[in-house]
Amino acid sequence: MEKVQQSINIYPCPTAKPKPGQQSLGFGVHFTDRMFLMDYSAEQGWHDPRIVPYEPLQLDPASMVFHYGQSVFEGLKAYRTDDNKVFLFRPDKNAERMNRSCDRLNIPRIDESLFVEAVQTIVRLEANWIPVGNGASLYIRPFIIATEAALGVRASNRYLFAIILSPAGAYFGEGLKPVRIFVDDHYVRAVRGGTGHAKTPGNYAATLKAQTEAKERQHCSQVLWLDGIERTYIEEVGSMNVFFKINGEVLTPELNGSILEGITRNSVIRLLKQWGIPVTERKIAIDEIVRAAENGGLEESFGTGTAAVISPIGGLFWNGNDIPVNQGNVGSCSQKLYDTLTGIQYGRLQDEWGWTVEC
Amino acid sequence: MEKVQQSINIYPCPTAKPKPGQQSLGFGVHFTDRMFLMDYSAEQGWHDPRIVPYEPLQLDPASMVFHYGQSVFEGLKAYRTDDNKVFLFRPDKNAERMNRSCDRLNIPRIDESLFVEAVQTIVRLEANWIPVGNGASLYIRPFIIATEAALGVRASNRYLFAIILSPAGAYFGEGLKPVRIFVDDHYVRAVRGGTGHAKTPGNYAATLKAQTEAKERQHCSQVLWLDGIERTYIEEVGSMNVFFKINGEVLTPELNGSILEGITRNSVIRLLKQWGIPVTERKIAIDEIVRAAENGGLEESFGTGTAAVISPIGGLFWNGNDIPVNQGNVGSCSQKLYDTLTGIQYGRLQDEWGWTVEC
Ligand SMILES: Cc1ncc(COP(=O)(O)O)c(C=O)c1O
Ligand SMILES: Cc1ncc(COP(=O)(O)O)c(C=O)c1O
Repeated sequence: MEKVQQSINIYPCPTAKPKPGQQSLGFGVHFTDRMFLMDYSAEQGWHDPRIVPYEPLQLDPASMVFHYGQSVFEGLKAYRTDDNKVFLFRPDKNAERMNRSCDRLNIPRIDESLFVEAVQTIVRLEANWIPVGNGASLYIRPFIIATEAALGVRASNRYLFAIILSPAGAYFGEGLKPVRIFVDDHYVRAVRGGTGHAKTPGNYAATLKAQTEAKERQHCSQVLWLDGIERTYIEEVGSMNVFFKINGEVLTPELNGSILEGITRNSVIRLLKQWGIPVTERKIAIDEIVRAAENGGLEESFGTGTAAVISPIGGLFWNGNDIPVNQGNVGSCSQKLYDTLTGIQYGRLQDEWGWTVEC
Repeated sequence: MEKVQQSINIYPCPTAKPKPGQQSLGFGVHFTDRMFLMDYSAEQGWHDPRIVPYEPLQLDPASMVFHYGQSVFEGLKAYRTDDNKVFLFRPDKNAERMNRSCDRLNIPRIDESLFVEAVQTIVRLEANWIPVGNGASLYIRPFIIATEAALGVRASNRYLFAIILSPAGAYFGEGLKPVRIFVDDHYVRAVRGGTGHAKTPGNYAATLKAQTEAKERQHCSQVLWLDGIERTYIEEVGSMNVFFKINGEVLTPELNGSILEGITRNSVIRLLKQWGIPVTERKIAIDEIVRAAENGGLEESFGTGTAAVISPIGGLFWNGNDIPVNQGNVGSCSQKLYDTLTGIQYGRLQDEWGWTVEC
């Protein structure tokens, strides 16, 4: 890991953009006044960490990111508590995962404590951009792109690490709302030996067409991916990990190298275990879910991820058939997980896990 | 397909960069004075095709290409003939393939005749950048990137199509030189249902680590990919398609949805058939090649692609063993294909196929 010696330089930010109203926040469309940048060169390693005004990046058209996609990213949130503190949720886990993504993409690792410090510093500077209100947050997007201007297929000698911030409205306006999911056995997101366990843009590029088709043809908001080899085993849903509660036991696909190791997934598993609910990480065939739905054993299903926290699944569309889940209602387990996780994130519940980090 | 009404606007280009010397051309490191740009918006479709000075692109840090990798590209070359004409090789095939890549990546199609016209126009303007000398050429890189500034995982509403040009030295300095290839059964490049048949950056990002390891550990210049499902069947090599000559028959992997449909591959198949050499496109297990090498049936092997045209393979490293091919020598079939294709490209042989297009 590269050790960065310098401290973060904070440049003046002369202008302040007007802030969007609470109702028009949306997700990922407004950006704050500043961004964090840091450069990498083969000679200097990671250097010049700085916070500068948010503005266009100037990149040579031959920059490798445009041609060979060498790039990784992360996603986390800052939450404003009732007593006006600002919390991050397990940011060290994002730093660790970014480095695991870097390893797979042949990008030099970053200093994980600098990652957390950079997030804390810029969030503190932009704290007046953190929206108030239930479920609202400041979405934080760290990313690294290959910036060397050269067209050979090889690892870049130059990179840019950036962090941008976007105020985000509540994912669910008024209470959790179950979604309808398309189970895809045509397109494949990732396969063992590929990049599925890394957070790299190419994984998402591969899913756009399937997502568009699922929306247009079956009014499904997300795609559930099956494994690329047998197209039988459940992987994940859109940008969420997925859970099923069957006859009192919670199941989720094991970390097999082709799914992302979600931080919400990890937190959910730990909470369920604490509550004495059995959780098993293993291979889950889609047919097993169909059978459980048919014989009444399928109690609930939900996705987990930073954006929605818990997203209850009300039904699956698979092989031409609708498979209702919990009659389209929010399950009690989904609701309790959502309440507990958001309770910790917004400082309303005691954080006995040490998951929250103040800015 | 979007029909573009406007003609290409050519802006003044006040400065001319010094041109690199013949010896320091390399590949993809120098860029010419101009570039072609065209924009897409959901409202206007593809619009404003223009040729402007080569300069950095100004992109919002939230541009989707950085986050979700929605992007495609192409690669072709312009060749200067002995009588000072400028030839392109089958540029219509690159336009077609770019649109197939766009389909997979959920990017709006471009007008294929405009693609060819844009390439012809900018190459004509930059003709004094085309190096002279055997094997030298002007490498042409068309690419499309998603430019909408938004962080939702969905298809972008804005794109930029660009063409940049780079003078390239001969791939092989003095005659063809066989390469050593690492057969990888750990990393996977692509799988059926994924994006392997599209020319999209994520496919290349997935290969960088394997390539680095093959170079460092086994001094192999390229990686041969096996299929992602059984890790048994040969797919392609680095950025080339691959051929094997066994007992007088030429074999190449069939187009199975996970390999790129190379334009050189197609040209090679047609030449071999014309010469009465049997060619078969089918599944090829790596074990079949090992057995053919052991019993003396493996006569030669080569990669095909725009960069090298024909790249003879002198040996494979597989499963801890070295498999020599044709005692590390250039095969007669490889040599004849190279001479014929470059003969057509440089206008030294008659083009009975109609493959060359003058600029
Ligand atoms: C593909 C994918 N799976 C799962 C997740 C959930 O991960 P996390 O809980 O860390 O947000 C995400 C989102 O970050 C994702 O993009
Ligand atoms: C993955 C891959 N396979 C094969 C090829 C060969 O294609 P072509 O002959 O059209 O250059 C390329 C290069 O363009 C490539 O990138």
